[in-house]
Amino acid sequence: MLTLLHHCGRNFLTLRTIQTVNKSYYSAHMAKRVAVVLAGCGVYDGSEIHEASAVLVHLSRGGANVDMFAPNIDQMHVVNHLKGEPSQEKRNVLVESARLARGNIQDLSKLSVKDHDAVIFPGGFGAAKNLCTWAVQGKDCSVNDEVKAVLQAFHGEGKPIGLCCISPVLAAKVFPGCEVTVGLEKDDKYPDTTDTAAAINQLGCKHMSKSVSESHVDEKNKLVTTSAFMCNAPIHEIFDGIGAMVRDVLKIA
Amino acid sequence: MLTLLHHCGRNFLTLRTIQTVNKSYYSAHMAKRVAVVLAGCGVYDGSEIHEASAVLVHLSRGGANVDMFAPNIDQMHVVNHLKGEPSQEKRNVLVESARLARGNIQDLSKLSVKDHDAVIFPGGFGAAKNLCTWAVQGKDCSVNDEVKAVLQAFHGEGKPIGLCCISPVLAAKVFPGCEVTVGLEKDDKYPDTTDTAAAINQLGCKHMSKSVSESHVDEKNKLVTTSAFMCNAPIHEIFDGIGAMVRDVLKIA
Repeated sequence: MLTLLHHCGRNFLTLRTIQTVNKSYYSAHMAKRVAVVLAGCGVYDGSEIHEASAVLVHLSRGGANVDMFAPNIDQMHVVNHLKGEPSQEKRNVLVESARLARGNIQDLSKLSVKDHDAVIFPGGFGAAKNLCTWAVQGKDCSVNDEVKAVLQAFHGEGKPIGLCCISPVLAAKVFPGCEVTVGLEKDDKYPDTTDTAAAINQLGCKHMSKSVSESHVDEKNKLVTTSAFMCNAPIHEIFDGIGAMVRDVLKIA
Repeated sequence: MLTLLHHCGRNFLTLRTIQTVNKSYYSAHMAKRVAVVLAGCGVYDGSEIHEASAVLVHLSRGGANVDMFAPNIDQMHVVNHLKGEPSQEKRNVLVESARLARGNIQDLSKLSVKDHDAVIFPGGFGAAKNLCTWAVQGKDCSVNDEVKAVLQAFHGEGKPIGLCCISPVLAAKVFPGCEVTVGLEKDDKYPDTTDTAAAINQLGCKHMSKSVSESHVDEKNKLVTTSAFMCNAPIHEIFDGIGAMVRDVLKIA
C-alpha cells in the first residue's frame, strides 16, 4: 500500500508540473484571460462533461489563458448516471469539478473580475441544480450568491459572459431584459426549449430562437449563448456550436 | 422532495429519449460501429475526460455509430482531484463511466465483437489502474480478464483497436511484438514517455517515438495509438492528435 501511494504521489507530482506549464503556455503572449465556472462533473448533477471539454478545446485553440473555478458547496444531490436516479451519496461541487479541470481549479470565491477578460458557464443540470435552483423552481429560482456576484461583476465591467445549454437561465434571472437563446422553439429536436424559453420570456427577457450551430450575441449586455445539448444533435454539432459561442466571446473580450 | 424527484425523473426521461435518437441517427447509413471502453471518469482514477470526449466528437464527425462500455468493478481507488490524493470513498467503474456516456453505457461483459467494427480505449490513470495494474506493477501488470478478452477478440477478427495516452500499454501487454506509441522519447514535453517506452520495449514490443499530433498504425496488428496527455501540450493539440487516431481507426475498420 505504501508503494502504491508513493507511486501515485509521484505521478500526481508529474501531472501537477504539466498543469503549471500548460497554464503559462500562452500567458507570455498577452492572451485573453478567461474564467470557466464549473458546477460538478456529469450531466445529471454537474457540468455537462462534453460541453465543458468543448469550451476548453475552443478556448485553447483561440489562444486564451484559462482559469477554472467552482463553488465550494455540496451538490444538490448525486445522481447515479447508470440508473438515472439520485443516490444517497454526498459530493462537493468544487471537488468533482476538479475532475474536469485535471486538478487545476480554484474556489469560486477566489474569482476576481480584474484578472479576467471574460467568463464562461458550460451547461448541464449542475448549472440548474448547484449554481441556481432552476431545476426545482424554474423562473422563481434563486441564484447562488457567489455566482450572482460573478455575473454582476463581469456585466458591470462590460466583460463578456458566455453560457450554453441551460446556463443562459442564470443570465435571464440576474439581468432582466437581456437576450439569450436555449435553442429553436417548437422544434422536436429541442424538446425542452419551448418551455424554458417561455419561462425566460416571463422573466422579462427575450428568448432568441437559434439552432445548435449558432450563438446569439446580446451586444448590449455582452452575453453570448448557444443551445448545445438542449438540442438532440450528434455530439460534433454540439462541439461546433460551442465553438461559435467561444469565438464570439473572445471576439468581444 | 417528491416534487424534486418527480421533476428530475421527467428530465431523465427526456434525456433518455435524446440518447436513443442520437444512437440511431447514423445507423441507417451502415455507419462504422465502434465500441468505446471507459475506465471511470477523471484523469487520476478513471478515463481522462477530455480524451474520452475527443474520441466521441471525432467518431461522431466520422459518422460512426458508438456504443460505450465499462467493467462493472470497483475502481482501484478514488482520488480527490482537488487535493490530488486518494480518498476513502468507493466508486464503481461502470457507474462513474456513465457520467461520460450521459447514462448510455453497458457492462463490458456485454460487448460483442461481432456487433462492432472497431474498439477504442481512451487514456487516463483509470486505464492503468482499473483496466490493468500498470500504475502499480508496470510491465509486470495483469490485465482485467474482460478487457483482455475484448482486445483478443478484436485482434483475432482483424478489427482495429485504437488506444491513446497510457492505454497503449494494454496492447503491449496482450500482444507481444506489437508497435505502439506513447509519445516522443527523450523530450521534456513528454515527461513519462521515455520510461514507459522502455517498459514497452522490455515486453518485446516496439515503441514508436511520435509527436502528439501523430497517430501510429501497426498495420499487422491493426493497432492505432497516439500520445494525447502523455504530452504536455495545449488541449486543442491533444484533441487534434486524437482526431488523427480516430480517423485512422475508421479508415482501416
